[in-house]
This record gives sequence, structure tokens and C-alpha cells, in this order.
Amino acid sequence: MTEQYDTLEHVLRAVHANTLSVDEAKAQLNHYDELGFAKIDLHRTQRQGFPEVIFGEGKTKEQLDEIVHALIKHDEIVLITRINQEKADSITAKYCHLEYHETAHIVSTPIKHIPKTKHYASIICAGTSDLPVAEEAAVTAEVMGIQVQRFYDVGVSGIHRLFAHIEAIRQSNVSVVVAGMEGALSSVVAGLVDHPVYAVPTSIGYGANLQGVTTLLSMVNSCAPGTSVLNIDNGFGGGYNAAMIIKMIEAH
Amino acid sequence: MTEQYDTLEHVLRAVHANTLSVDEAKAQLNHYDELGFAKIDLHRTQRQGFPEVIFGEGKTKEQLDEIVHALIKHDEIVLITRINQEKADSITAKYCHLEYHETAHIVSTPIKHIPKTKHYASIICAGTSDLPVAEEAAVTAEVMGIQVQRFYDVGVSGIHRLFAHIEAIRQSNVSVVVAGMEGALSSVVAGLVDHPVYAVPTSIGYGANLQGVTTLLSMVNSCAPGTSVLNIDNGFGGGYNAAMIIKMIEAH
Amino acid sequence: MTEQYDTLEHVLRAVHANTLSVDEAKAQLNHYDELGFAKIDLHRTQRQGFPEVIFGEGKTKEQLDEIVHALIKHDEIVLITRINQEKADSITAKYCHLEYHETAHIVSTPIKHIPKTKHYASIICAGTSDLPVAEEAAVTAEVMGIQVQRFYDVGVSGIHRLFAHIEAIRQSNVSVVVAGMEGALSSVVAGLVDHPVYAVPTSIGYGANLQGVTTLLSMVNSCAPGTSVLNIDNGFGGGYNAAMIIKMIEAH
Amino acid sequence: MTEQYDTLEHVLRAVHANTLSVDEAKAQLNHYDELGFAKIDLHRTQRQGFPEVIFGEGKTKEQLDEIVHALIKHDEIVLITRINQEKADSITAKYCHLEYHETAHIVSTPIKHIPKTKHYASIICAGTSDLPVAEEAAVTAEVMGIQVQRFYDVGVSGIHRLFAHIEAIRQSNVSVVVAGMEGALSSVVAGLVDHPVYAVPTSIGYGANLQGVTTLLSMVNSCAPGTSVLNIDNGFGGGYNAAMIIKMIEAH
Amino acid sequence: MTEQYDTLEHVLRAVHANTLSVDEAKAQLNHYDELGFAKIDLHRTQRQGFPEVIFGEGKTKEQLDEIVHALIKHDEIVLITRINQEKADSITAKYCHLEYHETAHIVSTPIKHIPKTKHYASIICAGTSDLPVAEEAAVTAEVMGIQVQRFYDVGVSGIHRLFAHIEAIRQSNVSVVVAGMEGALSSVVAGLVDHPVYAVPTSIGYGANLQGVTTLLSMVNSCAPGTSVLNIDNGFGGGYNAAMIIKMIEAH
Amino acid sequence: MTEQYDTLEHVLRAVHANTLSVDEAKAQLNHYDELGFAKIDLHRTQRQGFPEVIFGEGKTKEQLDEIVHALIKHDEIVLITRINQEKADSITAKYCHLEYHETAHIVSTPIKHIPKTKHYASIICAGTSDLPVAEEAAVTAEVMGIQVQRFYDVGVSGIHRLFAHIEAIRQSNVSVVVAGMEGALSSVVAGLVDHPVYAVPTSIGYGANLQGVTTLLSMVNSCAPGTSVLNIDNGFGGGYNAAMIIKMIEAH
Amino acid sequence: MTEQYDTLEHVLRAVHANTLSVDEAKAQLNHYDELGFAKIDLHRTQRQGFPEVIFGEGKTKEQLDEIVHALIKHDEIVLITRINQEKADSITAKYCHLEYHETAHIVSTPIKHIPKTKHYASIICAGTSDLPVAEEAAVTAEVMGIQVQRFYDVGVSGIHRLFAHIEAIRQSNVSVVVAGMEGALSSVVAGLVDHPVYAVPTSIGYGANLQGVTTLLSMVNSCAPGTSVLNIDNGFGGGYNAAMIIKMIEAH
Amino acid sequence: MTEQYDTLEHVLRAVHANTLSVDEAKAQLNHYDELGFAKIDLHRTQRQGFPEVIFGEGKTKEQLDEIVHALIKHDEIVLITRINQEKADSITAKYCHLEYHETAHIVSTPIKHIPKTKHYASIICAGTSDLPVAEEAAVTAEVMGIQVQRFYDVGVSGIHRLFAHIEAIRQSNVSVVVAGMEGALSSVVAGLVDHPVYAVPTSIGYGANLQGVTTLLSMVNSCAPGTSVLNIDNGFGGGYNAAMIIKMIEAH
Repeated sequence: MTEQYDTLEHVLRAVHANTLSVDEAKAQLNHYDELGFAKIDLHRTQRQGFPEVIFGEGKTKEQLDEIVHALIKHDEIVLITRINQEKADSITAKYCHLEYHETAHIVSTPIKHIPKTKHYASIICAGTSDLPVAEEAAVTAEVMGIQVQRFYDVGVSGIHRLFAHIEAIRQSNVSVVVAGMEGALSSVVAGLVDHPVYAVPTSIGYGANLQGVTTLLSMVNSCAPGTSVLNIDNGFGGGYNAAMIIKMIEAH
Repeated sequence: MTEQYDTLEHVLRAVHANTLSVDEAKAQLNHYDELGFAKIDLHRTQRQGFPEVIFGEGKTKEQLDEIVHALIKHDEIVLITRINQEKADSITAKYCHLEYHETAHIVSTPIKHIPKTKHYASIICAGTSDLPVAEEAAVTAEVMGIQVQRFYDVGVSGIHRLFAHIEAIRQSNVSVVVAGMEGALSSVVAGLVDHPVYAVPTSIGYGANLQGVTTLLSMVNSCAPGTSVLNIDNGFGGGYNAAMIIKMIEAH
Repeated sequence: MTEQYDTLEHVLRAVHANTLSVDEAKAQLNHYDELGFAKIDLHRTQRQGFPEVIFGEGKTKEQLDEIVHALIKHDEIVLITRINQEKADSITAKYCHLEYHETAHIVSTPIKHIPKTKHYASIICAGTSDLPVAEEAAVTAEVMGIQVQRFYDVGVSGIHRLFAHIEAIRQSNVSVVVAGMEGALSSVVAGLVDHPVYAVPTSIGYGANLQGVTTLLSMVNSCAPGTSVLNIDNGFGGGYNAAMIIKMIEAH
Repeated sequence: MTEQYDTLEHVLRAVHANTLSVDEAKAQLNHYDELGFAKIDLHRTQRQGFPEVIFGEGKTKEQLDEIVHALIKHDEIVLITRINQEKADSITAKYCHLEYHETAHIVSTPIKHIPKTKHYASIICAGTSDLPVAEEAAVTAEVMGIQVQRFYDVGVSGIHRLFAHIEAIRQSNVSVVVAGMEGALSSVVAGLVDHPVYAVPTSIGYGANLQGVTTLLSMVNSCAPGTSVLNIDNGFGGGYNAAMIIKMIEAH
Repeated sequence: MTEQYDTLEHVLRAVHANTLSVDEAKAQLNHYDELGFAKIDLHRTQRQGFPEVIFGEGKTKEQLDEIVHALIKHDEIVLITRINQEKADSITAKYCHLEYHETAHIVSTPIKHIPKTKHYASIICAGTSDLPVAEEAAVTAEVMGIQVQRFYDVGVSGIHRLFAHIEAIRQSNVSVVVAGMEGALSSVVAGLVDHPVYAVPTSIGYGANLQGVTTLLSMVNSCAPGTSVLNIDNGFGGGYNAAMIIKMIEAH
Repeated sequence: MTEQYDTLEHVLRAVHANTLSVDEAKAQLNHYDELGFAKIDLHRTQRQGFPEVIFGEGKTKEQLDEIVHALIKHDEIVLITRINQEKADSITAKYCHLEYHETAHIVSTPIKHIPKTKHYASIICAGTSDLPVAEEAAVTAEVMGIQVQRFYDVGVSGIHRLFAHIEAIRQSNVSVVVAGMEGALSSVVAGLVDHPVYAVPTSIGYGANLQGVTTLLSMVNSCAPGTSVLNIDNGFGGGYNAAMIIKMIEAH
Repeated sequence: MTEQYDTLEHVLRAVHANTLSVDEAKAQLNHYDELGFAKIDLHRTQRQGFPEVIFGEGKTKEQLDEIVHALIKHDEIVLITRINQEKADSITAKYCHLEYHETAHIVSTPIKHIPKTKHYASIICAGTSDLPVAEEAAVTAEVMGIQVQRFYDVGVSGIHRLFAHIEAIRQSNVSVVVAGMEGALSSVVAGLVDHPVYAVPTSIGYGANLQGVTTLLSMVNSCAPGTSVLNIDNGFGGGYNAAMIIKMIEAH
Repeated sequence: MTEQYDTLEHVLRAVHANTLSVDEAKAQLNHYDELGFAKIDLHRTQRQGFPEVIFGEGKTKEQLDEIVHALIKHDEIVLITRINQEKADSITAKYCHLEYHETAHIVSTPIKHIPKTKHYASIICAGTSDLPVAEEAAVTAEVMGIQVQRFYDVGVSGIHRLFAHIEAIRQSNVSVVVAGMEGALSSVVAGLVDHPVYAVPTSIGYGANLQGVTTLLSMVNSCAPGTSVLNIDNGFGGGYNAAMIIKMIEAH
């Protein structure tokens, strides 16, 4: 089989030097075009420490087993979100070095094996019912190698609880605010810090909460600049964005 | 014409005493029945200082003139809400002892002529754009004889502004919180006070605010007990409810 | 460890008297600051008879047990809302002086042990399906020490049922109106009384009722002033607001 | 040209009698088929007194002129709804025997020229702002030859106003209830009468009224059986349905 | 115990004749007042053949048993809607002369024992999935003593099926059209008949049908006059309205 | 019994020839009229290879058995959509030549027995969760005799996956794009091809996806001309439309 | 300047033949790459008769002038949609061979200069208010070289009007159905034809029509297979899709 | 007047040293408390280059003049968003060193006077109609001292336009994607880059776009991680967040 040329120039030079026929060059360049796209494909996994994220919901144990097998074979970090206890037990029984984060509903490479950044993200939540979403954010960021600090149960109905921690929150570089009901916490936090706030509405509430749609719309209308919003219950998205920011800061 | 008996008992006694025929009694009692309903009709105006409220929007100058004429003839307090400058000028030109509250869009009997309660209601608003609604609440309560204190431009994006006044707010007996956008202010206030909070959403905002529907739903979902909600931009309703509470407290 | 000073003045006097070093004073004042916030935290429980309210839904028996244990240890009144029969049995089996209000889905300190106010709140509901929400309102108010009168099954499709009780309703100081479907009852009541009406929409209905959203929006649009609205099925909120008003009246 | 046969039987008999060729019969029957449909088309106008209704909105003066010209030529009753003053002036200037109903925004054959039924429909409305829609219903029914009685400004915020007229309403055979805001009036009326109630929501209201959508949904959820609902502001539809019922009763 | 007087006049005459004391008369008249309202209350049952309708959903077997017991004791016609097989079996086992309409989910006095009107209502439905709602309408009307004709499975996707029956539909005096999905059938029917059409949207559909909300809104927007709309799946309401119309026609 | 004439002309000729009486002819023509409609009814099945489609959801095994029995008796192609494994097993056990498409939830005449078109439709889907809807589209088209090519798991979050297949997609004559979440794939595809794109939104997503309503609205707003939209999860509709187009192309 | 090579192969051959240097080849191929994309870009215009469509709304006269100038220079067919009379006058004054379609709000190359297909698309609309959208569809298709037949004012409230034309509609290969209000027409048409139906909802209606959203949802829920839906008032989209289908048929 | 002490420590030391009385210290510390909050207040302006942002909409020329006067007096950077040409002319006439960004509707300190960061943000928009929102984002970031690169008119209906610039976009550290209609562009971009993407939905579109609500919900549901969403048309919010990220990166 002919040698693989990795750039357009090499191919052209080979044609010019008669070491590559026109037809072979054509095939190479078509292949090169595909490689061009493939390069796009690989960009995520090529970033150090950014795992391939698996959305566990709706996948069978067998499908998850297959995916985990492939990831481990390639020495990838494992991060499976939205996975319930039963499926998680099945995975961790086989791949016993993996750990299950019960509240976060995440199976991952053990966090203690992953080096942490010096800068940290604040993960803030309003009430205890919001914990699963907050933990999804926190564990996602940790598996991505980010240091996080958790500030939980600091909702605005007792605002002094937030104020007790405001200095530590300010010293972080990004906040993920997880709240249900009227979602007022994200506005209050964004009014008190200098860094980007990712607001994650939860479906916690009842009646006119409309399964979190009210919370989402409320957060989108925040009067405090510096807020942007994720989908309802999308703790993963909050943690992922926060991690990208911290990574960039440490890289500079 | 026969004498008017004002209660059922009087009618029956007259029948018994033969001073009233059965037919006349029957007519009287039918009349009594109507009075029964009429009594319902009059109950609002019979309360001291509770004016007949006129919703000015959609009424012509002529209609407003006629109504004001009738109220003044009966020595009633005048309170016309949602009346624009042009119509107000027309009314106050003719009834020059009335005053126009420009921001509130209200024409009323001059507030300085109306005795005030000792207890007061807090009228709180988030931003300067919410002022017209806040003033509608404040002036409504004042015309109803209630003392109010205004705490304006204390939105949660700069929460220290609210905290500077929190003690004075706590010493009032009811709060009306007027806010647009995500409406977080009502939750924060209700978490800090011991008295009922009337949350008035405004249509201030844009995009996903949906002309105040988001604010309304957000306030209905408040995580802080002690909050109840009025229609969008219904400052009048907030002031009216607050006034009823203060009046009852002073009456006891 | 140094003595705890409970006010700013004491700290300053101790510094002035050289019985407290500057560094210790600084630590004390930082602590004082936290106390300042904590004082906010405690304000609810410091009001006589206002219990710490526990939202039972989503809490495990163990969590509820722990919370009840703590409340009883501090001689607090117990009020757990949205608790089902099974969890309630588990709690009342252990804390046998507590009682379960089956329709209201509430576990509380027995109401007969709680002194009642002289003034009363009217709890009014439209149909028998609305009873659980109405009872949540009524029992909440009773546990908060408020006298209530219940006027049930008086919906507008047979309006004479309401009229039979209208005088008793008028003599109360606040009404909580609980209704589903089109929620017309709150408008009719508010048109007949002089006091604040808290409208609690229920999710009773079907089709275009949209799980109570239609009822909520309908009540928010009430043509009768003196109405404010709670979240769908939020009987607790209605009872809580009513109780605050009655308490204030009796306190004056 | 061949004679026109107006029924299938005539055609067949003519074929049988050889006075009509097969081909001509075929053409006739195809024409008959069209007539069959045309018969459907004409059924409305064939009912005594049921005018061809013209929706005036969006039509030019010229288009309206042409339509009115055609109707008058065929001695039809004229009923143009949703026509503003300017266009109406243009029409009535030319066809001076027509009259403009200003509040109803209707141009019609003069009502005094149209014989009335003995039975009557009640047209009931909540507030003065609902008058244009109520009048559209009333005038539509009158132009269709129906006697109507108007009961206006009897909204539930002062329910005694409705009760003063309830007997007259009960003696009618159908009610059209026109209301905005929360639309409670239709439920109250339907609970008090024995006949069908047509509920017409209006777009009168603000904020969470959502241009009448809340009123519509509220009326659809009426707790009182015997209610059905028209589109927002569709007074015409209410009057039209009511007229059909009265006509059928008188016809039997 | 004193004799019961049934009218105001009798009471007054007895007072006048000294056969009734003033106090007793007062008690009687208060009772009369209640009767006055009760008269309103009873007005439905006083109409020949109009049963007290019981909404079975959410009621226990015991509650239903008690209600049925009371109705039968007063010789009332029984009509229980939205009752499932299990509860129905329990009722019909005890009251064995009652019958269960399985598709309609109705328990009633046997229809064959109820005299029928000469005029009839058309009950029309689009697809087989709409049958339960159509049958609820049909059986409701039949229990109310109305003759009905059923035209089922005549949806617009095969419009010839409707046309095969259009003459029979036209000869009825009212139509109830039951349809899901886009609900086009009610417009097509209303365009072909001269009588009122009650459109009953069903929750049959998926996706953007939004559990029947789309069907409801579609029917409310019908381009054909003579249509009015019931709540989603409210077959009972359609049958009830249709029955009122047929009854009135036969009464004249 | 008299002979059946299949066209209007034959009937008329028979009348003309006195071989058919006028009355019999009338009956025949009325029958003809019904046939006319029936012809409409049959038009679908008369198209070669277009099966009668059975919507399996909500039908019992017995109902399905009966329908399949009738189809097979008439040598029709069988296509039952939305049928679960259990019902499918019951059908395929009895009619063992039928096959169950597990992912598509379809029972059909075996696809290998159905001749395929030369032109093909592209069935494209975004993620693995969209497979059931995509397969419903693909199998529907195949049972209708259409060649399809499947391009699965080519969502826009890794757009190179789509580009790898874009030439093959372009060479087809119609595309069905199945996607959930934000549904961006249909816009991207429609921007790259020359043929009609049927966008099928799926209910895959969570939170603000609103069970596919967001996806539907998003696709309806596609910036790329050449897109039209089906109901949420309506893979059948996508496949059916695509098949009609391919059939027409091959027929010309 | 060096010669332009139009394919990859030519470039490679030139390199091989030493008539093109490696650097020049690289530049060419980068250019080729751009051309590759450009080819995508140009693919629409390369199809015979498919004009570049200009959305006129929001563009100034100057911007439109510039675009038209460029199109004419390249001998392109001109198709500007959503352009009002004033802007159209400005364009046609300068480019006097262009024509303005007033109802359609389109400026285009004169339709009489564009060759038509033999097969035709049916453009069907419900009422006269839907004409602008229907004409946008019709003219779009005509400018794209498609023969269209118009069937206007055939709404379902008088369904015989549609039936008079049903054979002609059936003989076309695609239908565009334009309707407002409840949009029932698209279901009726799709139930009667064998070809794809593009349903275009219009914003014609009021109240619960919600500016066409009800029509859109209704059409999406059509019970008749073979329907797909465009955005509200998107006549262009309907015409464009129809044209693509007719073009493909004629090309085979 | 006594000297001002600027920290807690200084006050305590002065008390200790007897140079400050306890009462004066108390007053100072209360003042300090206010300063504490004020410090929160000032935190935004203390960040280098982060201007006080003025929302121009709804403010009068006079109000804007006063604010600008104050800002300039304090040497603050000026940034007024949502200001129309007329008001802008009035401001820039008086403060002639300020500049008006016409498309962005922003008045600001001239951008050329503000030092730029080395890292840059990508501002990407789909169509020319989205330009005002994109420019609001770009100019906001520039006034905050951020270097931006604009990639405009690169919507997905012609996806090669985006690909031509993808490398430059990848080399930036944050992207703001501005799009209307279905908003697919943000998903496509987020799938191709490694940094946070701020999606700004615009109200560009019609019909089912619902003034940008569809775009917002679509973007919230993006299948590509790394996306978060701003309010509709909130270009400012996108630019502000992007600027915070770039600032943090340069600061490290």
C-alpha cells in the first residue's frame, strides 16, 4: 500500500516528483478531505482531561458496558451521566475501579485520581431538593479536572445563608447556580460577583412552576448582567461550561 | 303611604298588631328582600374612607365628568386610576380641588386632606421603570387613608440597597413589592419580614419576559411563605389590599 | 475561650475598658456580623406560635424523624405539610402526642393544645374535591393559633349555598377561597366582603383546566378588588397569610 | 336551448319519454349534481329571515358596496358585522334605508322592519367595556328576527345587580353571557337558569388576561353544566346560536 | 312542632290570625328564605326527567353508594358519569335495576324505562377512539329522555362517510360533534346543517395535539357559524346542552 | 334482482331503451351516488402498493386480528404502526408470514417480498434515541415499495458525520429528517440538498424541550427553504409523504 | 495570471506535467476548496429556473436595487417576496421589464417569459382573506417555472365549493392548501387526493386563533396522512416545495 | 466632625486608644456597615475598564444627559445601550467626544481610545437581520476593552460560509452566537469549538417564531454541550459575559 501523506503540500510534491500517480493523489486528497473532517471529530478527546460524556438515560446495561469497554481500552476518562443505581451497580461490578456518585447519578473514573485545578468553580444551590442537579454539575466539573466548592441550601428565603459564604464565592472564577421555584438565587448571586454565572433551573416546584419552565424563563430575565442559562435540570451543562472557563484560565 | 319597617321583626309585629295588612306586609317584605341586596351593594361605600374606585382607561372625558360630578355631590372621596394626562387635565380644570398624580396616573381628592393611619404600608419597587405601578399602589393606599413609606429602586441586582432600609420595612405591617423581569425582589423581601407581602409583577422587561407573564409566574412560585400575587401591573390591587389590612389593625 | 458579647456596644465597651483586645474584638464583631444574619434566621421562630414549617413531600421517614426530634427537643410547635398516610403513621407511632390530619395531609402538634385567637379566618371551598387544599389551609392556620371557620362545598354553580353563610363570612377578618375549574368563587366572595381574600386555585378540573393553570390565571384576573392569589394547590400559603393577618389584628 | 329539469325524476321521465337524449340527460344530471351542492349552498338563505352575514373587517368600501348591492337586489336582509363608522357612513349614505348600530359595529336592515319572535333571548354582560360584544350578539339576533332582552353591567363583583333581573332571565329560552377578565358571570348565570348558556369571552382585561385567552379557558372550565363557549369577542356567534334556538322553538 | 307553611302569604295570614307567634313566624320565614334558595337548588330536579348528575371520578364506592341510595329513595333518575367498571360493578350489584354503559362509563336508570322525545339529537364522532366521549354525550341525553341518533366514525379524512348520513343529521334539531386531532369535523358539519352544533374536543391525538388543547382551540376558531365548544372530553356537557334544546322544542 | 349499472351513462341508456324503469333508475342513481363516494373511499387502496395503514395504538389484539384477517383475505399489503412487542407477537404467531420491525414498532408484509423503486428516499436521524421514529419512517416507505437509504446518528453536534454522507443524500429525491432537542439537523440538510425535506420532530429531549413542541416550532421556523414539518414523532407521516413523491417520479 | 483549472484532476495533471508549480497548485486547490463550498452555494442557482429568492421585508430600496442589479447582470431570474407597493414601484420604475404581483407582494421576472411545466400544482385557499398567502405560493411556483391552477375561496363552511373542483385538484401532482382559522381545509383535501399536500396556516382569524398558532397546530394534527406543514403565512415555502416536486417529475 | 476611619481595625484601635468614644465608634461602625454594602455596590466600577452600563430605552434625553454628566465627571467609561438615533444625537451633540454606534444602538466612549485585549471573542451571526443584536454584543465587549472578531451572515442554510471562518473562530476563547428563526447556528458552532458559546436568540422571524421564544427554547435545547443562553435580543448580555471571560484569561 502507498505511503500516507499528511498534508496537501506533501501530496503535491509527490505528484510533482512522479512518486505518486495522479489517480493515487486524487484518492489521497479525497481521503485528506475526510481526515479534515475527522480532525474536527477528534478535537474534543484531544483536549487533555476532557472526557467523552455518555448520556446514560435510555441506554441499556449492554450498551453502556460496550461503551465503557471501549473508553477504558483507549485509556479515556469515563463520565456517564443520568445513570440510575441499578445500571450503575451493573457497571461498577464489572469495572470495579469506577465509582458511582449516587446523588449526581454519575458513574466516573474516580475523582481522587484526577488532578485538580488551582482555581475553582462555585456550585451553589437553593434547596436540598436541588441537590441532584447541583451534584451533576459539581461531579461533571471534577471529572473534567476542575476544583469545585459547594455552597448548598442557600436559597433566598433565608438570604443570610448565602451571605455567610459570599467571599468564598467571589474568589472563585465562575459560579453555577442551581435553583427551582422562582429561581431568584441566580439574580442575587450575579449581583454580588464579578465572574460569569451559569444559571441552571430545576424542575423542583409545583403548580405554576410548570416543571421548571417558569424557573427557566425567570432566570433568562435576570436583572443582573453576567448570567446565562442552561436547560431545566441540566447540571451537566453548567459543570461543563464552568470547567471550560477554569481550564482556559489555568492554561494562560 | 304606609310607614317603612326596617326589619323582618317589625313587619311581623305590625301584622300581628293588625296595623299592617297581609298584602302590605308582603309588599314590604319583598321590598325588604331588595333592601337585603341593596345592603350588599352599599357595603363598600359605607366603610369610612373607602372610595368608589373609577377605572379611567377606556372611559371618555364626558363619562368621567359625569361620574366625578356624582361622587362630589355625595361627598365621596374621588379615586380615578389609569387616567392619562389629557383626561386628567380636563377633570382637574373643572374640579380644581382634585389633584393629578402624574406618575401614578391617578386623579384623587388631595391626599393632604385625608387623615392618615398611624401604622404604615411599605411600597417597595425594584427599578425606576416600575415606578408608575408602585405609585399606583402608594397613592391608592394614601387616598384610602393609609400611611405609606416608599422604598424605591432597591432591586436584587444591588441587594445592599434593600438592606439599607430593611428595618423600616420590617416595622410596617404589610408590604407591596413591585418588580418586573424575574421578580426576585418579592421572594427576598418575604424572606426578611413577618407580615404579608403583596407581589405585583410589572410588564417591565423584554423577550422571554412575555409582557410580565414570566414575572407573574415567578412570583407565584416564590419560595418564601407570606407572599400572594396580583395581576400584572395591578398596583391598585396591591395598594387596596394593603389598605384593608392596615385599616383592620387600626380598628382593633 | 473569651466571653461572648451579644451586642456591638458591649464589644466596644470591653475594648474601651481594655478587657478585650483589638484582635479578639475584631473576631467577635465578625462573629457578631454572622449573628446579625442569624438573627434574621431566627425571626420566624421567635414569633409566638409560628412554627417552623416542614414541607414533607420528597423527604424520607428518616429525615422527617430527625427534624421532628430536633423540633420537639426545642419545644417547637410541629407542622409538617404534604405528608402521606404511610410516613405520617411512622411519625405518629414514635411521637404519639402528634396528630395526623388525614384530609389535610398534615402532621402537627394537636390543635386542641394550641390557644386560639378570638378573630377568625374563613376557609371557603367550592367543591368536595377541593377539600384537601382547603384543609391544608385550615389546619395550617389552626396550628399557627388562629381560629378558623370552614365553609365548604359552596361553589357558584349553586350560589345559594354560599349566600346561606355570607354573614358569618363577613364577620371574619380574612377569607381563603379554595376553588378549581374556572375559580369563579373567589370573585363572588371578594365582591361580598370587606376584608382581604386569598384565592387558592386547585388542580381540580380536566382538559382545558391545564392542571390548575387556567384557574390560577382566572383568579389573577378577578374583577373584584381585594383578591390576591397563591400558587396552585398552595393551601398552606393561604392559611399562612391569613394567620399573619389575624395575629396582627389581635396584637393591636 | 333545452328546458331545465329541476329534479332527478323529471330528467329520467324525459329520457324514458324520449323527449331528452341520453347526452343531454347526462349534462342535465351533471348540472343537477352541481345544483345538489348549490342546494346545500342556499340552505341558509332559504330559512326565513336568516340573512347572509358579511364580515366587514378587512373588506374595502367598494367590496362592501358590491355585496350590499347584490343582497338588496335579491331582497335579502342585510347584516354586516365588524364595520367601522367610516365604512358604515359610506354604505348608509348610499343605501339610506339601512341603519348603523354604532356600539355593535353593525350595518343592517332596520330592526324595526323585522318581525320579532314571542320568545326571547337574554343578552347579559358583565361590564360596560363588554358592551360592543354584547351589542354584536343582541343586534345579530334581532336582525335574525329574534326578540332579545338586554341585561347589562351585572358582573359578579356586585352580584345583587344580576339577582335583580334573574327572573326575567329565567323566563327567556337561551342566554348569551358576555364577560371579560375571569369570566365568572357565565358560571353564575348557568347555575341559575334551565336553558342553554352561550358564554362569549371578551378581550377586556390586562396582564394575565392574555387578550381574552384566560377568559376563554375559564369559561370552558365552567363548573355549571349548560354552558358552551364561543371564540373571544365573538358576539355574532353567540347571537347566531341563540337565534337558531328561538327560531326552532317558535317553529314547533 | 308547628305546622310548615309553604309560602310567605300563608305565614303572614297565620300571624294575622294569631295562629302563629311572631317568633315562630320569624323562624318560619328564615326557613322560607332557605327554601327560597332551596327552590333555586331544586329547580333542576323539578324539571321532568332532568336527573341529578353525579360526577363519579374521585368518589369512593361508599360515597357513590350513599348518593345512589338517596336518589332512589326520592325516586330520582340516576346518572353517574366517569365511573369505571369496578365501581360500576359494585353499584349495579347492589342496585340491580341500574345499568352500566361500558363505553360511556356511565351508570344510570335503564334507558329503556325512560320515555323518549320525538325530536332527536345527532351524536357524531370522527374516529373509533372518540367513542367513549361520544357515548357519554349520547347516554347523557338518553337518560335525560332525549332520542338520539348516533353517526360514528365519520371523520373528514374520508368525508364520504359523513355525506352518507347528512340528510338524517339535518333532520335532527341539534348536533353534538365529538372529534380529536385537528377537530375539523365540527366545521364541516356546522357548514351543512341549520341547527346548533356543540363541538366536543377529545384528547385523542399525540404530539402537538397537546392533550386536546389544539383540538379545543381549533374548534373555537371554526369558520362555520352555529358552533359552540365544550371542554376537552366533556361529552356529558354536549349531551346535556343538546337535551335542553330538544326538551324546549317538545315543550312548545 | 336487476342488473347493476356502473356508470351514469349505462343507466340512462337503459332508461332510454326501456330496459330499466324510472323508479329503478332512480334507485340505481342514488346507489350510484353512494358508489361515487365509495370510489373516493377506495382510491387509496387502488393505488398500486399503497397499503391500508392501521394505527395499532389503543387497539386490542382481537381488533388487530380481525383487521389483519380482512386485509389478508383481500390480498392487501399489511402495515400496522405503533404496535408493541406483545401485540406483535400475538399477530405474527397467527399470521406467520408477517414480520415485526422491532425498533419501528411495525408489523408488515415482509419487505423482501415487496418490489422496490429505483429512486430512493433518504431517512436521516440525529441521534440514537431518534431511531424508533426514523425506523417508522423508513419501514413505512419500504412497505409502500420505496427504496430507502438510512443515514443515522448524524446530528449537528458532530457535523462531519453528516458531511461524510452528503453526496448520497443529494442523489436521493426526498429526505426525511428525524431529530429531537433543537432539531437543527433539518435546517442543515435542507441547506445542502435540492429536494423536499420532511422534518419530523421527536419528543427526545427534556426540560424546555416540552415533549417535542420546541423541536416542532424550531423546525417550522427553519431558515432553509424546502422544509415542511410533520407532527411530533410522526415518522409514519414522513415516510408516507416521501413514498408518494418517489412513486410519482417513477410513474413518469 | 495562471490558467484556472476547474477540477482536482486537472490540477494534479498539470502538476504532474510540470505545467503548474506546487505552490500555484496549492493556491488553486485552496481556491478549489472554496469553489467546493461555492459549488454548494451555487447549487440552487444551477438548477434550471430556480431563482435566488430575495426576502424583501426589512430591506431598503437601496439594498433591493443593488441585489436586483446583480441578479440581472448575471441573467438570473428575479424573485423578491414580501415587498410592499412603495418599494416595488421604486424597483419596477428602474427595471421596467420586471412585474409587481400586487396581491402576492412579489416582484419578479415576468411570468409570461418563463416556460411552464406540463404538470401542475394546485393552489387552494379557504377564504378571500387568505389570498395574499395563496398568491405568494402561486407566483413563487410560477416564477420557478411551474404551472399552477388556483382554487380559491373553497373553505369547508361551504364544502360543495371544494367538491366542484375536486377532479381538477386530483389531477395535479401536489397541492398547497392555504387556510386560517381552524385550518380544516387541509385535512379535507388530503383525504381526497393521492399526492402530497402542503398545508400553509395563515394568521387570518382572531381571539383564540393566536395569530395563526392554532391553525398551525391544527394542521400539524391533521388526521389525513399526506399532509405536511409550513410556517404561518409562509406561502413562499409552500410554492417552493411544490415546485421542487413538479420539477422532479418532469425531469423523469 | 470626627475623623473618618476606613476599616474596622482602625475604629477598634481608636477605641482602645481612647481617641474615639464608644458612641462615636458605634456610629462609625454603623456607617462602616453601610460602607460594607457600598463596597458591594462599587465592585463593578472598581474593575478596570468595566463601565457602568446604562439601559437607554425608556429614559428621556434629560435623564440620559444627567447620567452621562455624572459618569464623565468621575472619568468613567460611558456605555449606553438601546438608545435611538434621536436621543443619541442629543447626547453626542453635547458630549462631542462620545460616539454613536448606529447599528448597535449604543453611545459610548470612543472604542479607539480603549486598550484592547490580546485574546479575542468571536461575535457570530446568522443573517443580516440579526446585525443590530450582534453589534450590541460586539460593541459592548469592545467598550469593555475586549478585542472582538466579527463573523456575520454565516447562517446554516449555507453552511460553507461558516466553515470558511471556522479556524479563526476556534482560535478565539469565547463565542457569542446571534441567530433568529430556529437558531440552529449555535448548535453547529458549539459542536465545532472548544470554548464557551453564548447563544443569543433574536426576535427575527415570523409566525411560529413567537417573537423569538421559539429561538430561545431551541437554543436552550442545544444538543451540543458548551452552550448557554441569554434573553431574546440580549446582545449586551452576550458581550458582557464574553468580556468577563477574556478579562479573566488575560489577568492570569
